[in-house]
Amino acid sequence: MSYIRNILEQLKSGEIDIDNAVNELKDMPFEDLGYAKIDHHREIRNGYPEVIYCEGKEIEHIKGIVDKMLIKDTNILATRADKAVYEALKDMDEHITYYELARIVAIKKKEIEMSKNKVLVVTGGTSDIPVAEEAAITAEFLGNTVERLYDVGVAGIHRLLANIKVLNDASVIITVAGMEGALASVVGGLVDKPVIGVPTSVGYGTNFNGVSALLTMLNSCASGIGVVNIDNGFGAAYLASTIIRQIKNSR
Amino acid sequence: MSYIRNILEQLKSGEIDIDNAVNELKDMPFEDLGYAKIDHHREIRNGYPEVIYCEGKEIEHIKGIVDKMLIKDTNILATRADKAVYEALKDMDEHITYYELARIVAIKKKEIEMSKNKVLVVTGGTSDIPVAEEAAITAEFLGNTVERLYDVGVAGIHRLLANIKVLNDASVIITVAGMEGALASVVGGLVDKPVIGVPTSVGYGTNFNGVSALLTMLNSCASGIGVVNIDNGFGAAYLASTIIRQIKNSR
Amino acid sequence: MSYIRNILEQLKSGEIDIDNAVNELKDMPFEDLGYAKIDHHREIRNGYPEVIYCEGKEIEHIKGIVDKMLIKDTNILATRADKAVYEALKDMDEHITYYELARIVAIKKKEIEMSKNKVLVVTGGTSDIPVAEEAAITAEFLGNTVERLYDVGVAGIHRLLANIKVLNDASVIITVAGMEGALASVVGGLVDKPVIGVPTSVGYGTNFNGVSALLTMLNSCASGIGVVNIDNGFGAAYLASTIIRQIKNSR
Amino acid sequence: MSYIRNILEQLKSGEIDIDNAVNELKDMPFEDLGYAKIDHHREIRNGYPEVIYCEGKEIEHIKGIVDKMLIKDTNILATRADKAVYEALKDMDEHITYYELARIVAIKKKEIEMSKNKVLVVTGGTSDIPVAEEAAITAEFLGNTVERLYDVGVAGIHRLLANIKVLNDASVIITVAGMEGALASVVGGLVDKPVIGVPTSVGYGTNFNGVSALLTMLNSCASGIGVVNIDNGFGAAYLASTIIRQIKNSR
Amino acid sequence: MSYIRNILEQLKSGEIDIDNAVNELKDMPFEDLGYAKIDHHREIRNGYPEVIYCEGKEIEHIKGIVDKMLIKDTNILATRADKAVYEALKDMDEHITYYELARIVAIKKKEIEMSKNKVLVVTGGTSDIPVAEEAAITAEFLGNTVERLYDVGVAGIHRLLANIKVLNDASVIITVAGMEGALASVVGGLVDKPVIGVPTSVGYGTNFNGVSALLTMLNSCASGIGVVNIDNGFGAAYLASTIIRQIKNSR
Amino acid sequence: MSYIRNILEQLKSGEIDIDNAVNELKDMPFEDLGYAKIDHHREIRNGYPEVIYCEGKEIEHIKGIVDKMLIKDTNILATRADKAVYEALKDMDEHITYYELARIVAIKKKEIEMSKNKVLVVTGGTSDIPVAEEAAITAEFLGNTVERLYDVGVAGIHRLLANIKVLNDASVIITVAGMEGALASVVGGLVDKPVIGVPTSVGYGTNFNGVSALLTMLNSCASGIGVVNIDNGFGAAYLASTIIRQIKNSR
Amino acid sequence: MSYIRNILEQLKSGEIDIDNAVNELKDMPFEDLGYAKIDHHREIRNGYPEVIYCEGKEIEHIKGIVDKMLIKDTNILATRADKAVYEALKDMDEHITYYELARIVAIKKKEIEMSKNKVLVVTGGTSDIPVAEEAAITAEFLGNTVERLYDVGVAGIHRLLANIKVLNDASVIITVAGMEGALASVVGGLVDKPVIGVPTSVGYGTNFNGVSALLTMLNSCASGIGVVNIDNGFGAAYLASTIIRQIKNSR
Amino acid sequence: MSYIRNILEQLKSGEIDIDNAVNELKDMPFEDLGYAKIDHHREIRNGYPEVIYCEGKEIEHIKGIVDKMLIKDTNILATRADKAVYEALKDMDEHITYYELARIVAIKKKEIEMSKNKVLVVTGGTSDIPVAEEAAITAEFLGNTVERLYDVGVAGIHRLLANIKVLNDASVIITVAGMEGALASVVGGLVDKPVIGVPTSVGYGTNFNGVSALLTMLNSCASGIGVVNIDNGFGAAYLASTIIRQIKNSR
Repeated sequence: MSYIRNILEQLKSGEIDIDNAVNELKDMPFEDLGYAKIDHHREIRNGYPEVIYCEGKEIEHIKGIVDKMLIKDTNILATRADKAVYEALKDMDEHITYYELARIVAIKKKEIEMSKNKVLVVTGGTSDIPVAEEAAITAEFLGNTVERLYDVGVAGIHRLLANIKVLNDASVIITVAGMEGALASVVGGLVDKPVIGVPTSVGYGTNFNGVSALLTMLNSCASGIGVVNIDNGFGAAYLASTIIRQIKNSR
Repeated sequence: MSYIRNILEQLKSGEIDIDNAVNELKDMPFEDLGYAKIDHHREIRNGYPEVIYCEGKEIEHIKGIVDKMLIKDTNILATRADKAVYEALKDMDEHITYYELARIVAIKKKEIEMSKNKVLVVTGGTSDIPVAEEAAITAEFLGNTVERLYDVGVAGIHRLLANIKVLNDASVIITVAGMEGALASVVGGLVDKPVIGVPTSVGYGTNFNGVSALLTMLNSCASGIGVVNIDNGFGAAYLASTIIRQIKNSR
Repeated sequence: MSYIRNILEQLKSGEIDIDNAVNELKDMPFEDLGYAKIDHHREIRNGYPEVIYCEGKEIEHIKGIVDKMLIKDTNILATRADKAVYEALKDMDEHITYYELARIVAIKKKEIEMSKNKVLVVTGGTSDIPVAEEAAITAEFLGNTVERLYDVGVAGIHRLLANIKVLNDASVIITVAGMEGALASVVGGLVDKPVIGVPTSVGYGTNFNGVSALLTMLNSCASGIGVVNIDNGFGAAYLASTIIRQIKNSR
Repeated sequence: MSYIRNILEQLKSGEIDIDNAVNELKDMPFEDLGYAKIDHHREIRNGYPEVIYCEGKEIEHIKGIVDKMLIKDTNILATRADKAVYEALKDMDEHITYYELARIVAIKKKEIEMSKNKVLVVTGGTSDIPVAEEAAITAEFLGNTVERLYDVGVAGIHRLLANIKVLNDASVIITVAGMEGALASVVGGLVDKPVIGVPTSVGYGTNFNGVSALLTMLNSCASGIGVVNIDNGFGAAYLASTIIRQIKNSR
Repeated sequence: MSYIRNILEQLKSGEIDIDNAVNELKDMPFEDLGYAKIDHHREIRNGYPEVIYCEGKEIEHIKGIVDKMLIKDTNILATRADKAVYEALKDMDEHITYYELARIVAIKKKEIEMSKNKVLVVTGGTSDIPVAEEAAITAEFLGNTVERLYDVGVAGIHRLLANIKVLNDASVIITVAGMEGALASVVGGLVDKPVIGVPTSVGYGTNFNGVSALLTMLNSCASGIGVVNIDNGFGAAYLASTIIRQIKNSR
Repeated sequence: MSYIRNILEQLKSGEIDIDNAVNELKDMPFEDLGYAKIDHHREIRNGYPEVIYCEGKEIEHIKGIVDKMLIKDTNILATRADKAVYEALKDMDEHITYYELARIVAIKKKEIEMSKNKVLVVTGGTSDIPVAEEAAITAEFLGNTVERLYDVGVAGIHRLLANIKVLNDASVIITVAGMEGALASVVGGLVDKPVIGVPTSVGYGTNFNGVSALLTMLNSCASGIGVVNIDNGFGAAYLASTIIRQIKNSR
Repeated sequence: MSYIRNILEQLKSGEIDIDNAVNELKDMPFEDLGYAKIDHHREIRNGYPEVIYCEGKEIEHIKGIVDKMLIKDTNILATRADKAVYEALKDMDEHITYYELARIVAIKKKEIEMSKNKVLVVTGGTSDIPVAEEAAITAEFLGNTVERLYDVGVAGIHRLLANIKVLNDASVIITVAGMEGALASVVGGLVDKPVIGVPTSVGYGTNFNGVSALLTMLNSCASGIGVVNIDNGFGAAYLASTIIRQIKNSR
Repeated sequence: MSYIRNILEQLKSGEIDIDNAVNELKDMPFEDLGYAKIDHHREIRNGYPEVIYCEGKEIEHIKGIVDKMLIKDTNILATRADKAVYEALKDMDEHITYYELARIVAIKKKEIEMSKNKVLVVTGGTSDIPVAEEAAITAEFLGNTVERLYDVGVAGIHRLLANIKVLNDASVIITVAGMEGALASVVGGLVDKPVIGVPTSVGYGTNFNGVSALLTMLNSCASGIGVVNIDNGFGAAYLASTIIRQIKNSR
């Protein structure tokens, strides 16, 4: 919030008057479309992409938001975007890509500098891959080097044990698992590094659309697991990214 | 229900008349105390002990039931028996023992023939031991040879892997685990034999008194796990016992 | 996990070096398709079929997995397979069959040796038959002789009582019931053998998609019922099969 | 609500004026203690006792209410009354009795005429008796002839089948059961008469304090079961009583 | 279960032998189609129609069941029957009628004798009518005279108060209400007769598909309400019918 | 309920007789269509529009209700009206408008006098706008001046802080928010005026269709928030309107 | 937040420099005790009392907070204060009073000006009085004239109807009800003014500690009910107070 | 798991034979007390303390575990330790301290090297302090420099905004909040660094012992929040510690 101090300093120095200061505080940090208030400052400060969560938004609203974002020439990530969203957006910019499995539309206007430290995305089963890909694509778009290790759930623990080295190479591990979600516990017991749990809605019956996996991860007897919402690959990637960024910053 | 056919045959042969037949059907298989109907026939046919579930029963009722059972000279197992129950019963028979951790009062009037095949009771942590002991003591009382392997939860998976041989020696495995209960999944993935899951109420918060572990076990990606009620060590032992009995019978 | 000891012995004897040993541990027990890690060792050791759980998997992924499995010439069971899956697979092998009610695609490359002991599948109503068939077909494919007893729910208890002999003939009983699921309790009270409860999502309102039947089975006042996930016919069959296998092994 | 017509007629005939009419409407049907508004009219019209539900009420409030009721010389039933309530009330009237198991304080000022038709109270187990007694005592106090049949749960179905005649003798059956509560379904399948289900909180774990039994009863595949709140013996008795009253009235 | 005594008497008198007796017990009371066991005895004894609950049943199974039932020349009621079921059945018998709102197919082969006592069906709103019609049509088919009073919910209490006389004329009242379901409480407070509560899934959000109305009815501060499953108009009608039958029988 | 006094006075003065009085009480305050009882009196007294909640109602029923309402020449608001409802109604009156986002059909027969005090409708995100519009359109139709402030959720708190003045200008604030719904707490902490919380079903996973936002609002550490049902924009507007009316009345 | 503008103006005019401005923003609006940050500004601006929610706070912390508050010479309200809290505080100031039923400790240092408009507090039963008193005492302390109408629940609807005039006299109505909580719906249907619903935890079984009443109020078919947390009498009073304040302000 | 490779290398070089290798795998990484398997290797490799979770463990078991741990001369942290645990342990070592609010017993045998990067622990209210202290003490014991910022919940958002600088100084932020738990969202919206959410059970009614705060944190519209179990201060500290360790390692 250093921009507040900036405004105060300008006010003090007479560059702006009180009404301007109040206006700055009101107008600067976001752009108002009526149906949406676009928040550019985070991108500007951090080199982060603009992000749109598409689910539940009118397609016309999404187009309006992208339109405003494109003016700033930043990268754009539209998550939970079904094919209809992509169809509506695809002629708006030439750098657009659609990751169907991950349901992500990405517009890459600028090169992304990739991190030295790795984020590892692990899944319990094959059915968890769409959520894992949302995490992986997002993490890459946020500048993180990503490794994938899929279908190593605990029903065949040797598949995971055979990949200990891959676990050891990562700085942050995102475990994506549905059904009983025990993968996060086992991974958390094998490593001493940040583990992020993403419960998925994969399963049926008492899985309760991911609640079973969620509870497993929250109650893990292995310490040090931070859990995000069910199927929230994006959130896990974002959290992993803030950790990688802290590592980067302190170097 | 071969006793039904017996009664019909006696009726046909004239040994008994219709009213007697109806009376037999009504009176034989249990004894009526008003507040309880004691079911002796299971014990008689199977050599099983009589079992009383004490929770929620008046102490006077429990004493009345034990009193009637003692007449039949069978073994008696009173589960969920707190110390007050033991105090009330302890002078009723000299063969009485109280297993405090397991909350079981046992009256052993006859020798029990132990099975060749083993039931293994495994726990995730130290806090799961009371439930595990309910299972182990019950299983032994039902004539099963029992082995115990405690505190081998998935947060330190090597503790379990170091005991693969113990898993391989058993015919039935009872896994007792609270918190996230992932132990059942991992054990189920390591062996091809009947695995019984007993979720425990050990944990806090989103453990919801055992629901978390229960859901984990029901949603296990490892197939072949039969789950019983939360903290139901007795039920697990009983199920294990029916399996061991089938093995015995078919020899 | 005797293959671990094998590898250690080969290492000791100089047949393989450390890197080979590590590689063996990593590569041997499964085949890596990236999106799936196929686990052949269970089948090889046990004569079990390979199993694919289809729900939530991309059809291309399923085809890829089946393709790899066919090379091993083992039997294959694809569960939760809707018609589209069958259509995609049906030209891949001539021994393919589709059980529509059970939603199972089976590829039978080798003859299956059937057990002497019987698994009985019982349902409460006619609407429970699809889940029961998933259990029955699976159990047969796993080498168990199966008997079916359908629509004998407790609303007309005489239908069940008239079939006591059928209950007595089985070594393991799978009870499949929705609505209030009381069938499992009544069956559990009539026999002294392993009873597996499969709650189904048949019902409406406070049935909560099978939760009502699940709770009934978990709280059964009849001891010795092992419960699996809602609608999990496959899991019940697998558990029954491990029991039958224990009986077979000890003969 | 014929008293409304009465008031209108008095108004019309000039016996009372408008303000009186409004006052009658306001004052007549209950007595206002500030903290309670006692409803005498139901008792007066029906010969029903006054009823006080004690749980959560201050003892001083209970005493105040009983005090006002005693003036009307009607029978009084105080439910959910622990011993402290009885101690506070016992010197207020000589006709007072405390049913400890049922937690009922009864003050019987007038003789109760008993019905010809019977209400049968059935329990699954011994631990359900307190709730059953609340139902039985209440039903008797409301003028119904009551029969009791305790501990006939479905784990030993023969105990119930041996008592078919008792079921057949009743006009209304109240089934009181905890754990999985399947008794109501089985009884409902055996008879063609009104069955009232009272789930009890007897059990543990996934019983969820009676929810399991409640769901069983609501989802019963036997039709014709009316369910009341968990442990609500009083409500079941009251409903049974309205049915018996309809039978009586139509004779 | 007087047919059991019959069989015993025939056995005693030599009319049938033991194997016949066992066969009778096994074969008589229902007809076995494999996928269904049709229970004719209830109809035969009571003059009740045969009932088929269609939801979740294969159309071929429904047709098979109706086919067998038609042979007995009894009335048939198929509930939860969507249009496709009706289309499949409509050419099987000329006495068939489809009640679309109530989703009931009725085949009326014999005249139904209507009761003198009335069942009143009340709804809170217009959207509750489909469930109310399931109750009303069923009750009529079971021989009860039915009156309807729709859209008298508590948001406008005067609509209900204006119909007190209609409430007073009935012997049993079925209250059908969604949203908060308070209608049952208010009706229960106005009358001293059996009230059956049918919560409906009408509503949204925290209505949780009828759970809100269900809990309201179970917790009603007005005593004497028997609750059935959400949207279970059939069950309410059946329960009402057993009550009317008791009244009839005792006349 | 002054109309009751009116009737009593007419009765007293002889203008009407008792039967007329009873009839008035029965017939006056609503119109009976059988499937619906239309309540005109509220509109007549208050100048409020007639309101129809369309969800779950048959289109023919809706048309019938509107038909009767049009005779009274009042304004009509049909909520939860999908396009099909609008199509069915649009030729019934020329003053009809369809607000698609808000799913409201409005028929404006009379001018509406707008309040001096303002209702502010605030949303957390763009996806909450449909619910917000239901609130805003309803509030306007009920005669309230409405201001909108959309997409000011707490993830970018400066967007809200920049609009403090807008918050200060309103007399009642309706906060509409999904996901975690924290907006209501923050708004409640910033102002000392009535805040109404409308949780929306916007979100996924553990949002549980709005339960997460609902719980947040109910547990708000900021006092003075009145919460309505999930997605209930109408209810919030109605409550806001009663508050504005109190302000108006007391002037 | 006019104090922000004040600070800006002082900065602009040179009265304070930038560091002072930042410090003001940081230090002014609350006092920091480490374990608590006391917020005096609300009281100062509004004449509201300081409020402490005692549940879960250490007694030493409560004393420390009260100590700081007493210096400001404002009124203080400590809610959810059990007797031990009162004992600890009672010698700190002479104007202290303990409302035991309401669990409120009040320290009244200044006279409170009472509103002309009334807040009415209504309860369904006698057991709801403690919550109602929390609301009533709080509302009075916040300067509102309060009327009480207790024990008028819907099981005896005439008790409420007889008090229509009392409902009509109030500007805001707080309905406090447990069990099924239908009182709020009925009151909401009778009046056109703001109704605040306070579900209470009074009841048992499926009441689920107040959830039943909560759902009833949220799903009320009567519009215009704002609901607060279970047993949250304080919150209801606070919301009522903001409404009364709006009325006052606009006069 | 580099110790596995070590063992393989020793085996290869002939230092140990196969049986020794198997024994090493079995015996080395933990010590077996029967009721507990103590895992020393994590401590040895990482300089981490040994940790005992005390809840649900017998005091004799805790003493036995501490006894074994003391031999290794490492630091020991016993969490969820009530006073009785401390009393039992306090004479076992002179370096023992009891943090009563945090319920932690700490035995500090070796100096702990503190991190340069800071962990900030923030609470919403005063009642959240016990959980926050569990986090803070644990984090310090794990070698992290900790800052505390208590009672800055969103009901008075200025208290948090005034501390922006404190937020900016930390590398990881642990937000501890009960009631609606919105603090995590607001903090997550203000910073671009890892935020860990700890929902607490502080609150009542629909707080459901912390579920409300949990859901808020999982559904946060601010990205990048990793959530741990309700009241799990220890887990949050452990996760924070793994992040700080990654930062340290990469320097």
